[in-house]
Amino acid sequence: MTQADRAFDLALQARIDLKTKPQGALGRLEDLAAQIARLQGVLTPRMQTCRLMIFAADHGIADEGVSAYPQSVTRQMVLNFLAGGAAATVFARSLGVAVDVVDCGVVGGPIGHPALLQKRLGDGCANSLHSPALSSTQMSSALGNGSALVDASASDAVCFGEMGIANSSAAALVCAKILDIDVAALAGRGTGLDEKGLHHKRTVLTQAAARTQPRLSAESALSEYGGFEIATMTGAMIAAARNKRLVLVDGFIATAAALAALSIDPTARAAMVFCHRSAELGHGIVLDRLAAPALLDLGLRLGEGTGALLAWPLVRSAAVMLNEMASFEEAGVSGPQ
Amino acid sequence: MTQADRAFDLALQARIDLKTKPQGALGRLEDLAAQIARLQGVLTPRMQTCRLMIFAADHGIADEGVSAYPQSVTRQMVLNFLAGGAAATVFARSLGVAVDVVDCGVVGGPIGHPALLQKRLGDGCANSLHSPALSSTQMSSALGNGSALVDASASDAVCFGEMGIANSSAAALVCAKILDIDVAALAGRGTGLDEKGLHHKRTVLTQAAARTQPRLSAESALSEYGGFEIATMTGAMIAAARNKRLVLVDGFIATAAALAALSIDPTARAAMVFCHRSAELGHGIVLDRLAAPALLDLGLRLGEGTGALLAWPLVRSAAVMLNEMASFEEAGVSGPQ
Repeated sequence: MTQADRAFDLALQARIDLKTKPQGALGRLEDLAAQIARLQGVLTPRMQTCRLMIFAADHGIADEGVSAYPQSVTRQMVLNFLAGGAAATVFARSLGVAVDVVDCGVVGGPIGHPALLQKRLGDGCANSLHSPALSSTQMSSALGNGSALVDASASDAVCFGEMGIANSSAAALVCAKILDIDVAALAGRGTGLDEKGLHHKRTVLTQAAARTQPRLSAESALSEYGGFEIATMTGAMIAAARNKRLVLVDGFIATAAALAALSIDPTARAAMVFCHRSAELGHGIVLDRLAAPALLDLGLRLGEGTGALLAWPLVRSAAVMLNEMASFEEAGVSGPQ
Repeated sequence: MTQADRAFDLALQARIDLKTKPQGALGRLEDLAAQIARLQGVLTPRMQTCRLMIFAADHGIADEGVSAYPQSVTRQMVLNFLAGGAAATVFARSLGVAVDVVDCGVVGGPIGHPALLQKRLGDGCANSLHSPALSSTQMSSALGNGSALVDASASDAVCFGEMGIANSSAAALVCAKILDIDVAALAGRGTGLDEKGLHHKRTVLTQAAARTQPRLSAESALSEYGGFEIATMTGAMIAAARNKRLVLVDGFIATAAALAALSIDPTARAAMVFCHRSAELGHGIVLDRLAAPALLDLGLRLGEGTGALLAWPLVRSAAVMLNEMASFEEAGVSGPQ
């Protein structure tokens, strides 16, 4: 930490402590306010606009029956996002958050819709049970696409969400390889597998994981096991963090992208807020490894960015506290006796 | 449960389950949506407007040195609310929530401000270490005042907040007597007592509690130990619940009022949402006794309605989910395979 950073931190802490409240009485909102101020490097940070980016793609490993829902649902849900009928889009509308839907490679060919952002890398990625999910070209294209998408948009914060049948399998494999954890421990019920389905999913993922070394670099893990949407989101998160935009990380799949992003660029941590702890089994384990307690714990397991959206008002309130609350002196309020 | 209620519940559950998401994937938001629908008795509940009511008063027991802050802070903070500089008022402004500040009996005589609602029951309540905090006349006036305040306002939901130096002592005593718990277990650091201060607070509260029977009715507990603001809030909560308005309960002190309200009118439970779990020691214990897991756990311990305000966007999102999300059929999305 430089001397300038130390001076900034002291000024920031004083600013928070002199607000008309007992010290620390706003708990995690105070930490969040400090994070936002540090990210932007100012004591009065701007936190007014938020965008939701939903990255959608299909997964070859869906062929192995690892999801409770058919693969066609990915495409159907993209149309549902565009029509504004999905959970994430109704939350976003109610919260005044703009939505970008990105086709990173949904099965069935391009979807002709003027509002859909086209970053297709194929008609679903390959089946990682048998071969790498992404070629190295697809992998670097994905990171670049994510970066370009973020650079083409503007907002103080970005909610990162996703859609892709079987992507809890891809996320479990990516996290397992980056963290060198048994993938079976990270495999959960996804959209709602029963006991038998979960057992089958664990068998498939264990077999897929056996194709490669126990620990892989983030790039290799994404290429071997990640989907188009996870790799694109990884690039987008890195770019958002570099642009000093707050990265609102959603559930398990978005956290897999965040884990990969942090592995590629550890400085991205300063921009990241882990918004909610999903009911999906692996999420808590990965959050614990990241030492990243989530803001919300509401039993969500939907993805799409829903958990990140629900945390957005907390983020905005933290900044508002810093910017608009009166100090003891300004308000003429006495301190402790 | 009547047959009509059962039919309503079945229709409601079907409506939630047929939304385009795996069953249960929105976790506690689904429970919240169901609670709102049941409260209003319709499948498309209205949840657009919210008011924050901040009840302020002073406490005779502050004379015993049970708070880290001087009593004058209550009055100063009322002025801070009116000027819009306090945490609750900046959150409310940012969230589009209207604010009512109610003087239930702040020390120093009436505060002349056109926006302040005047429901003064005295210049602070009596010191409950030595005598009942409220006379029986004050007690019934408080309940009536709360009811009248709620009846004079309109909103789909009401955030209940408070301000009053030493009111975590009053809340601990009220809860201890209603639940027949040792008050020392419910006494916390309030605005920030140190170890010695906390020890002293426990001694004072234990002595105050010894004046009466271990278990009291809600009315007696409020009269013996509650403050003007807690008793007024109790009346307001009962009235809001009767009017089918959602009662957003803030932290420890608001929960003491909610506990009293539930003891007087158990049907009020249908309207209550316990919004956050305060860092104040006694709050978790009382929430557990109420079997009321809070929505948020952010380490807040400020009161004023801050925790209730931060939960309001979650509440609104729950209703929006029920009202605006597409069903599988409407969106043409396939169900599980």
